Amino acid sequence: MSSGLWKSVLVTGSSRGIGLQLVTELARSCNRPGIIIATARDPTTSTDLQELSKTYPGVHIVKLDVDSQQSISSALEEVQSIVGNKGLNCLINNAAIGFSMDLNTVTPEAMMKTFQTNSVSPLFVSKTFLPLLQTAAAQSSGMGIHRAAVINISSILGSVEWTWGESANFKNYAYRTSKAALNMLTRCLAVDLGSDGILCMSLHPGWVKTDMGGPHADLTVEESVSGMLSVLSSLTEYDHGGFKDYRGQNLPW
Amino acid sequence: MSSGLWKSVLVTGSSRGIGLQLVTELARSCNRPGIIIATARDPTTSTDLQELSKTYPGVHIVKLDVDSQQSISSALEEVQSIVGNKGLNCLINNAAIGFSMDLNTVTPEAMMKTFQTNSVSPLFVSKTFLPLLQTAAAQSSGMGIHRAAVINISSILGSVEWTWGESANFKNYAYRTSKAALNMLTRCLAVDLGSDGILCMSLHPGWVKTDMGGPHADLTVEESVSGMLSVLSSLTEYDHGGFKDYRGQNLPW
Ligand SMILES: NC(=O)c1ccc[n+]([C@@H]2O[C@H](COP(=O)([O-])OP(=O)(O)OC[C@H]3O[C@@H](n4cnc5c(N)ncnc54)[C@H](OP(=O)(O)O)[C@@H]3O)[C@@H](O)[C@H]2O)c1
Ligand SMILES: NC(=O)c1ccc[n+]([C@@H]2O[C@H](COP(=O)([O-])OP(=O)(O)OC[C@H]3O[C@@H](n4cnc5c(N)ncnc54)[C@H](OP(=O)(O)O)[C@@H]3O)[C@@H](O)[C@H]2O)c1
Repeated sequence: MSSGLWKSVLVTGSSRGIGLQLVTELARSCNRPGIIIATARDPTTSTDLQELSKTYPGVHIVKLDVDSQQSISSALEEVQSIVGNKGLNCLINNAAIGFSMDLNTVTPEAMMKTFQTNSVSPLFVSKTFLPLLQTAAAQSSGMGIHRAAVINISSILGSVEWTWGESANFKNYAYRTSKAALNMLTRCLAVDLGSDGILCMSLHPGWVKTDMGGPHADLTVEESVSGMLSVLSSLTEYDHGGFKDYRGQNLPW
Repeated sequence: MSSGLWKSVLVTGSSRGIGLQLVTELARSCNRPGIIIATARDPTTSTDLQELSKTYPGVHIVKLDVDSQQSISSALEEVQSIVGNKGLNCLINNAAIGFSMDLNTVTPEAMMKTFQTNSVSPLFVSKTFLPLLQTAAAQSSGMGIHRAAVINISSILGSVEWTWGESANFKNYAYRTSKAALNMLTRCLAVDLGSDGILCMSLHPGWVKTDMGGPHADLTVEESVSGMLSVLSSLTEYDHGGFKDYRGQNLPW
């Protein structure tokens, strides 16, 4: 990570898994962002997060249930008081759920719940934090995480193109449709926020050993997150509205 | 339309607009399907539909609110008794809603309601009618509407690729994300139903003068529907899992 690139960053769903590793690796890096806002719907349950904020004073823990507009609005107030007139430079929409459900087992309730958390909540988190992103964007030029960015943690399972072959084994109607919708959200936000200088993109972490990815996944969280942070550190205007994986490879929609 | 190709077809949301025109043109064609099931959530409100079923005895009106599993299950029973042991050859998921909502006006409620009708309901209509489609598929070979098909009426606004340029003027977070999710549903169904010989595809009707498309749209319903029926009539296994427009052109995901 190049020095001074990361100023302030907020990560949703950082109680465990990829979100926790994102804030941990950012906190430990020699080019640590001045402000790391680690949000979780119930921060008291994550001892790892508590430890991290004790060790690194730049890490702020903020309560945020992305499914609740009231919680998003309270978090905004708290974050506003942390970042002040510098605004927020990078919002990482990472929180998500993923039940494994095939055509036999899928239910309307699982579909709706998954759309809520994985597609609708990232929109309203982004919309609510937009004034802080705009404040940050107004103080810089170019495009990238040095200025302002909305990063949606998506999945290759959200690629409508990549559903054949090996991918066909991952049966998951709720998760796949929600991540395809999230990719569309990335594009709609890119259209609307580009003129403010706010970069928007979808990022696939790879298949990662977390509670969601399971023990047979390809990557450790460390491998995935170090790749993702290096991709994020080198984003430019050419990545605006794009879909990349943790190695920086472009993925098909 | 080639003779004997269309046997039985069910259209959701045929009270007005494209759905009404689909059942009307099918009923009037010289190669009329033996059974046309025109469904609507409240058939009594559509005098056009009432007229059509009086004029053409092959047109059956069935009540179907796609958002209600109870209504879908009742419709299944009724359709089962109409098609008997021949099964159902073609299911057209056409019913949809589309509020125009930009980043300022979009609400969580509108997002969720639109996912329900445009993405979740087509899944549960398809899943519920699957035994009838499988019955039809077992009596034929090859792939196409002569055998069995699930046709999801999608939109170019659901193309994640096509969001730049001219398309960027159509601001609609709820509709766009729901149709991207529908396209993913098409692909997931294609993976799961292909081995049964059931063709699944997404079809874009063009921009059409209906209540949804508005008076400034490019096409009349007649132009759109005659194009779509000619595309549907010539589907083969090469179209399985595809996304075409009313002229038969392939669209990007
Ligand atoms: N793991 C993989 O292989 C993989 C692959 C592709 C994409 N992804 C994506 O990567 C991201 C992180 O996944 P992961 O593997 O780290 O998943 P995980 O281990 O299941 O962790 C999910 C995180 O999201 C949080 N969360 C869920 N609902 C929330 C809500 N309403 N409000 C706030 N936080 C909420 C959880 O908080 P609680 O602790 O409170 O439940 C948890 O911190 C997700 O977007 C996922 O779709 C993962
Ligand atoms: N018009 C266009 O330019 C255009 C472009 C691209 C794609 N499309 C797609 O084409 C399809 C038809 O659109 P349209 O232009 O004909 O729209 P429309 O004129 O607004 O008609 C929508 C139809 O869907 C029905 N519907 C809505 N919710 C329903 C529910 N819960 N249960 C059953 N029926 C329901 C409506 O029934 P009620 O009469 O009971 O409300 C009506 O019959 C949609 O999938 C749309 O997204 C249209």
